[in-house]
Amino acid sequence: MKYSQLFIKTQRELPAQEESKNAELLIRAGFIHKEMAGVYSYLPLGLRVLEKIKTIVREEMNRVGAMEILMPAFASKENWERTCRWDSVDVLYKLEMSSGKEVALAPTHEETVTPLVQYFCRSHKDFPMCVYQIQDKFRNEPRAKSGLLRGREFWMKDAYSFHTSQEDFEAYYEKMKEVYMTVYKRLGIGDITHITAASGGDFSKFSHEFQTISEVGEDMVFYDTKTGEYFNREIVPSQAPAVSYQDTEMLPRKDVEGKGIVGVEALADFLKIPVEKTTKTMLFETDTGKVVAAAVRGGYNISELKLKEVLGCKMLKLASSETVQRVTKAEVGYAGILDLPDEVETIMDESCKGRMNFETGANRTDYHTINANFGRDIPEPKQFYDIKVANSGDINPDTGEIYEISHAIEVGNIFPLSTKFSDAFRFTATDEQGKNIPVIMGCYGIGISRLMGVLVEVFHDDRGIQWPKSVSPYQVYLAPIGRDQSVYTRAEKLYEDLQNSGIEVFYDNRQDKKIGPGQKFADHELMGIPLRIVVSERTLEKNEVEWVERKSGKTQNVSFDDLKDNIRAFCHG
Amino acid sequence: MKYSQLFIKTQRELPAQEESKNAELLIRAGFIHKEMAGVYSYLPLGLRVLEKIKTIVREEMNRVGAMEILMPAFASKENWERTCRWDSVDVLYKLEMSSGKEVALAPTHEETVTPLVQYFCRSHKDFPMCVYQIQDKFRNEPRAKSGLLRGREFWMKDAYSFHTSQEDFEAYYEKMKEVYMTVYKRLGIGDITHITAASGGDFSKFSHEFQTISEVGEDMVFYDTKTGEYFNREIVPSQAPAVSYQDTEMLPRKDVEGKGIVGVEALADFLKIPVEKTTKTMLFETDTGKVVAAAVRGGYNISELKLKEVLGCKMLKLASSETVQRVTKAEVGYAGILDLPDEVETIMDESCKGRMNFETGANRTDYHTINANFGRDIPEPKQFYDIKVANSGDINPDTGEIYEISHAIEVGNIFPLSTKFSDAFRFTATDEQGKNIPVIMGCYGIGISRLMGVLVEVFHDDRGIQWPKSVSPYQVYLAPIGRDQSVYTRAEKLYEDLQNSGIEVFYDNRQDKKIGPGQKFADHELMGIPLRIVVSERTLEKNEVEWVERKSGKTQNVSFDDLKDNIRAFCHG
Repeated sequence: MKYSQLFIKTQRELPAQEESKNAELLIRAGFIHKEMAGVYSYLPLGLRVLEKIKTIVREEMNRVGAMEILMPAFASKENWERTCRWDSVDVLYKLEMSSGKEVALAPTHEETVTPLVQYFCRSHKDFPMCVYQIQDKFRNEPRAKSGLLRGREFWMKDAYSFHTSQEDFEAYYEKMKEVYMTVYKRLGIGDITHITAASGGDFSKFSHEFQTISEVGEDMVFYDTKTGEYFNREIVPSQAPAVSYQDTEMLPRKDVEGKGIVGVEALADFLKIPVEKTTKTMLFETDTGKVVAAAVRGGYNISELKLKEVLGCKMLKLASSETVQRVTKAEVGYAGILDLPDEVETIMDESCKGRMNFETGANRTDYHTINANFGRDIPEPKQFYDIKVANSGDINPDTGEIYEISHAIEVGNIFPLSTKFSDAFRFTATDEQGKNIPVIMGCYGIGISRLMGVLVEVFHDDRGIQWPKSVSPYQVYLAPIGRDQSVYTRAEKLYEDLQNSGIEVFYDNRQDKKIGPGQKFADHELMGIPLRIVVSERTLEKNEVEWVERKSGKTQNVSFDDLKDNIRAFCHG
Repeated sequence: MKYSQLFIKTQRELPAQEESKNAELLIRAGFIHKEMAGVYSYLPLGLRVLEKIKTIVREEMNRVGAMEILMPAFASKENWERTCRWDSVDVLYKLEMSSGKEVALAPTHEETVTPLVQYFCRSHKDFPMCVYQIQDKFRNEPRAKSGLLRGREFWMKDAYSFHTSQEDFEAYYEKMKEVYMTVYKRLGIGDITHITAASGGDFSKFSHEFQTISEVGEDMVFYDTKTGEYFNREIVPSQAPAVSYQDTEMLPRKDVEGKGIVGVEALADFLKIPVEKTTKTMLFETDTGKVVAAAVRGGYNISELKLKEVLGCKMLKLASSETVQRVTKAEVGYAGILDLPDEVETIMDESCKGRMNFETGANRTDYHTINANFGRDIPEPKQFYDIKVANSGDINPDTGEIYEISHAIEVGNIFPLSTKFSDAFRFTATDEQGKNIPVIMGCYGIGISRLMGVLVEVFHDDRGIQWPKSVSPYQVYLAPIGRDQSVYTRAEKLYEDLQNSGIEVFYDNRQDKKIGPGQKFADHELMGIPLRIVVSERTLEKNEVEWVERKSGKTQNVSFDDLKDNIRAFCHG
């Protein structure tokens, strides 16, 4: 590709500030164009990167026998109602056909793929099988401010596997972990991408995310150095560090008036006690109508996910203010764990354990109780649970290790779906005896366009992008400099020669007097092509070119004779 | 690809009848799966065909320097309002974002690409330029009953070119005609695909369609054998053949009572006159409120497009029943050309010319006038026009030739857009003196998935599809037959060998006793791969395979030694 044929122009700065580094650099370098929040066009260089990422994913999926298909964006309401997701998935775009029928723009394709595979595969002999697609997806994201990291329209690879035994599914699931890690390795982020245990949502106890360590990541991953395991924040088993105070005797329980104090920090200040002595109590209602008081030590938040798990319930919502008033006999904001009526089940986090003289809401409007104690003011609970959102400094209760914590970006996730979708569509297979057996499913997603954004977040410096060799739009940025025509003639010849040898070259053939070497080099650095080859009068005198590596900055002169071999070695290095 | 790895199953017949041959065969052969009317999934073999068509289109577009980009499906309401198409394009899907903003699912991308190119290209030096994309499109089609020929979600290649002079645009437009014809040639339909003059719609006087002759085509193309020109039915210049009766003297004008007679055939029967003596009169209102009576000879329909052209108006609608009653003093259904008030302009088609004793509505409820005559009952019009939808048998008034008429399917269209979109976005370029000059645009569409359907409509027999070599999912269908294991061992080796030589092989490795040669051959014929290679005990004895060509049925034995060379020659033949 010659620069002169390309219509984009790089920009030193943008008219309006972009909220993410990846969007800023990709727009400035002319790789993408913003159409609206979370919706981008891919320009020629950007499309090349996107296609290279797709190719890597496709190659690795094909290698394990997954079959590529292509499903439509339109998905039928009937199918989404069958799985009870038409109303519950809040990011679903819905629209009406001229016939009056409603359809969704699919953000994921379980509802399409399950009946499709069911149509063909009925016998145990048809399993296991796995199909995937690389397809444009839609999510009605309320926030779409992270460039390619969180789009309203974006490219995904989504795969779905089907099995007739749990063992077979599990083996395939493990194989898919390897496939994913190979993809990340080929993209240059293998070392900083970790398989992370995550919630299985409605489908199963666990799923797995692939998290790439990055300061700009919205997620936090918790790493246990002893076991080498990673967890996401939602589900990480956590034990609070020991409290920083030591009481030796119980003080008299007392209610203190303190109206409208917001937050445990303010409360601790007001009461002149350590934050760890405060208690956060929240009231919930379950799907069966049970009222639950959940309590964590001050400084923590309650994880509804963990709480649901403890309660074994599917739905959980914050108790209504009527319920709070009925059970606490107080306004909202003063709930505590003492003297609650029998109808309320109290679940206490292990961070509450072993404390003396702690604070808790007084269940009395405007009042807080201090110096509460287990055994005296409330029976010591038979069991404490882990129902908190983990914090920095927390310990893995299984190993006793303090977690190492990093910000990270999710670059893939894999889900055991069990029979959730096959049940919804009454999809079973027949075994050797002709008996119906359940079909077990898994799904496996990689955000293709998101990965493009992640690579920019991870690989850039203050001058621009530093593409990994595997996905750079071109391998070589060829820049003749100076005003001598012979330089351009020689560069043109080199361009042809390298291209004919199968080397992908972006040829900065601009001869405009206003575009000096500085501009060309700045453009190269912004665009992030791994290798720059400079041809000038001075290098030609020695039958050489100047070789500059984008990432390391390493610069050397290389003779024309050795150039192709050196480029090949560099590209595969 | 081995059949055993593929999850699809072919079907002898479908559970429900498909309304189109292409959908029926593609579904039965396991190439596509119907999700809803006009919405399909592409299964592994179908996706391969789709990708091959894309590749051919891409190669030809790249060859003329068009640059590939990828724009989103989401398009902003603001942009579509700017071009006044938000409300006027009735196939536009509209939906709401969580922010409350409305967006469209773009059925075409002028509203996206124009501001995108404007963002980068401001100087005359940036032109000409052309960008294209291959992208999933959406149209809210009321009828979607033609399989891949008319989809609600479908794949398109859409290109947009930008120029600073009309001459430059026209030269590019001609170049694009060649690109398109090369694409059709490579797809094997070059001989039966014709550049056809069509209406330019709101944009320009003419555009061009590429029409592939096919009995199932919804379109009709009119061919002038003298000039070699093709026209679509909407715009073809037409002269009605002479009438088949000969009156020599005027008969007395008379009103005949005839209530509720529907259609000119019934009327002619009732009046016992030739159909050519009847007149069809319709009343229209223009955007300026003028009332127009348009009349054609019985047997023709009125072309609103041609009428608009004659009147030089942008909008035209059928007159309301109130208007009809006011100007004709009769109920709807009895309008005629005689004695209309002065406010009505009468436009008469040339098919009405030279008739004696013709019929026309009496402008009196339940009555028809017979034996009307120019000169006596109404002045002979100064000018007759061509405002009819052409019929079989019509003559090209410019050459005097009777058109040859064929049914055809539109496989591409190219449009001069003039400055319609650049004006809407105030997109101009600066010339050498820094003065603003208009930007002239063209757009160029090819339906990628529609082409897949067209190829099936054109290339099939009663046993199945006959893919052109250029887009067949595989080049060779390898079918070992019989029960001897050595046959399968040898076939497996051949499969590996051919694949390693870069030949695309679909290997029907099914060894199930229930699947005999007949089933394998039937599957091959249904799937339509150009060449079948059969390995059996009998052929192995002679170190040969059986070679069967899908289209011609030509069968021969070929030795293993010559096989690869023969396949290569066949594929490039």
